[in-house]
Amino acid sequence: MTDLTRLVNRRYTLAARPVGLPKASDWNFEHLPVTPPEAGELLVRIRYISLDPAMRGWMNEGRSYIRPVAIGETMRAYAVGEVLESRHPEFPVGSDVGGVFGVQSHATVEALKCDRLDLSLAAMPVWLNALGMPGMTGYFGLLEVGKPVAGETVVVSAAAGAVGQVVGQVAKILGCRVVGIAGGAEKCDYVVNGLGFDACIDYKRGPIFPGLAKHCPDGIDIYFDNVGGDILDAVLARLRMRARIVLCGAISQYNNTMPIQGPKNYLSLLVNRARMEGIVVFDWADRYPEAIAAIGGWIREGRYHSREDIVPGLEAFPDTLLKLFRGENFGKLIVEVV
Amino acid sequence: MTDLTRLVNRRYTLAARPVGLPKASDWNFEHLPVTPPEAGELLVRIRYISLDPAMRGWMNEGRSYIRPVAIGETMRAYAVGEVLESRHPEFPVGSDVGGVFGVQSHATVEALKCDRLDLSLAAMPVWLNALGMPGMTGYFGLLEVGKPVAGETVVVSAAAGAVGQVVGQVAKILGCRVVGIAGGAEKCDYVVNGLGFDACIDYKRGPIFPGLAKHCPDGIDIYFDNVGGDILDAVLARLRMRARIVLCGAISQYNNTMPIQGPKNYLSLLVNRARMEGIVVFDWADRYPEAIAAIGGWIREGRYHSREDIVPGLEAFPDTLLKLFRGENFGKLIVEVV
Repeated sequence: MTDLTRLVNRRYTLAARPVGLPKASDWNFEHLPVTPPEAGELLVRIRYISLDPAMRGWMNEGRSYIRPVAIGETMRAYAVGEVLESRHPEFPVGSDVGGVFGVQSHATVEALKCDRLDLSLAAMPVWLNALGMPGMTGYFGLLEVGKPVAGETVVVSAAAGAVGQVVGQVAKILGCRVVGIAGGAEKCDYVVNGLGFDACIDYKRGPIFPGLAKHCPDGIDIYFDNVGGDILDAVLARLRMRARIVLCGAISQYNNTMPIQGPKNYLSLLVNRARMEGIVVFDWADRYPEAIAAIGGWIREGRYHSREDIVPGLEAFPDTLLKLFRGENFGKLIVEVV
Repeated sequence: MTDLTRLVNRRYTLAARPVGLPKASDWNFEHLPVTPPEAGELLVRIRYISLDPAMRGWMNEGRSYIRPVAIGETMRAYAVGEVLESRHPEFPVGSDVGGVFGVQSHATVEALKCDRLDLSLAAMPVWLNALGMPGMTGYFGLLEVGKPVAGETVVVSAAAGAVGQVVGQVAKILGCRVVGIAGGAEKCDYVVNGLGFDACIDYKRGPIFPGLAKHCPDGIDIYFDNVGGDILDAVLARLRMRARIVLCGAISQYNNTMPIQGPKNYLSLLVNRARMEGIVVFDWADRYPEAIAAIGGWIREGRYHSREDIVPGLEAFPDTLLKLFRGENFGKLIVEVV
């Protein structure tokens, strides 16, 4: 048994509520002894921490789909690691687990709130990506809200990001025509040549409307929106009749100090009898095994590629989070605790 | 047989595309001989003309759910009247008919594009209201897009208007709690005491949010939007989980010379897994008989009230249309051709 008294937990807590982009002084980095697990609990050594756009919302006061992180509290994050000490018979030491462990090196958590990871299906970082929240979000958002039909045209923003990769690849597997939107030639090249999308529009080169007109000549049946802002407006102007917009995020707006930019072309929903609907992944928790089996199967068959952008060192967390909001990550952004 | 050569048709044609509110110089008023009907056609003496918010959109260039009215063309309008001359055996002289007859005193039209009116069910103006487009719009928008469940809270804007009256009354009949939004104490009083809504919020008295908080303590399940703008934003901020917004119109925005005001609270759709979806009444044409039977039955049973605001004189058309955009009509706005 590990001598727990010698273990130090390193963690980031929220020091202040950010205005705009989070800055260094919004965080405290703390060293403190690990908390020994009580009956039913596990001590987890965290290996990989997921960095998600939603984190920015958790740092704000006020109601969202989940309560805000309190000042002084460990920053919330989904993470994966191994059990170092167990007080639950079904999770022996050495088990691979995932959960809302926070931005820290060690977590003491209720065993029954942990997910088991089957590393024979995919390596640990993939469980934060294709087989984790982004995979579940893309899969259920596309299938259950978007309701794709083979032959339809699907557009996805942040196409090189964690959720975008899932949506586009699953839509291709289902027989749709898929057009990505991403920032920069390198990402667009990867989206088309690495992930197999039919086309990708580089939003950093100027307005995307000409690209949408070219690559979606018959209009857009499904738009999976991760970004909001001007891109959402451009897509609204090219909807097809009975189109579906899956509202998953609005990363262009999360660090606003001004009011949110509402979609001024929203009346296209009326003209086209179209629908815009929100997806929150937690609603589909009881069906995660179905999505894991499907995506895991496609990975095994070589039909699906999971790409992670892994940054080493817990101490890199504050800067790495900014990478996400600057659109600099390439694939699922992860901090590796070393 | 009428001596057609003596009949003069009076009509309004579009002289110019309006900027902002339509003004007198955007119309031409013309007198010209009626066109005798050819085989399969009818000559209709128009009695009542429907004035609708959608007319403003038809006056603009550019794609909508229906083509724009051309410069020099008779202004498009739905209307009702009697057959004065018939070249179709199934529509004898004296038949009561409805159709897209235009803003004029006489129309020469294809018989098979006309609807037959059963005046034993309700008087002619009601066929432009509860048993006409507003009735069909409210009925199918509420039932098929809103999908109300007894006990749910339904909010409807422009509650004293043509579509608002339908939505609120049908929702009450289906067992929902119904809150209207209307302009002025007199309209609000009518909505509650004349139409039986549970409450009505007067948007002219100030921001509506406190009224929504008071009258929708558990949030809003269905919002039937006829107005857009700030009212849509206030409602978005009070949605319940899995709420439905039926997007039917945005009269607050139709005369804008500035860009449309997008709903800046649209991310409430994400947080609440809610849905915003457009309704265009023409999609439901093959089910109009079902709605006419239902609403006609409720009228006969005294459970449903159809209120029209009838302005006499075809020449009153340009000014009367402005009443609509100033929110001055009280019930379905109709011009009577005298």
